[in-house]
Amino acid sequence: MPRVSGTREKSSALIALGAVVRGQRKALDLSQEELADEASIDRSHMGKIERGERNVTVLNMIRIAKALGTDVSEIFAEAGL
Amino acid sequence: MPRVSGTREKSSALIALGAVVRGQRKALDLSQEELADEASIDRSHMGKIERGERNVTVLNMIRIAKALGTDVSEIFAEAGL
Repeated sequence: MPRVSGTREKSSALIALGAVVRGQRKALDLSQEELADEASIDRSHMGKIERGERNVTVLNMIRIAKALGTDVSEIFAEAGL
Repeated sequence: MPRVSGTREKSSALIALGAVVRGQRKALDLSQEELADEASIDRSHMGKIERGERNVTVLNMIRIAKALGTDVSEIFAEAGL
């Protein structure tokens, strides 16, 4: 049975999600470092999330959405997920 | 800096999310085992997700949404997230 056990998964869904995070961050004129700090997420981890290189958790998505001033549902909807 | 490194996090957001998954599953008259199998997620893991005892990943949320015939954004919206 295929299971998602790791966090290093590359997928078109993660890439789409990361692109939305990056787009919303840039729309707010925030640097990646500023968003990472605001969301209390490690800076290098944030870069990997934006590139779709990490299978983000729900709690980190909530932190990111809060830092972007939006809802998690909005981010997923914009990513077509 | 507080980081989300583990998967065993209890939070009201995870509890709300799990409740939505459970509610949608029951509305489809699926057992927890059937949903787990359909989503290719370990059965005991699915139980913990529904009880809000696991910090679910995006890829698992996508599998669950697909198995429920809905979108991840809809699940988060229903959970108020």
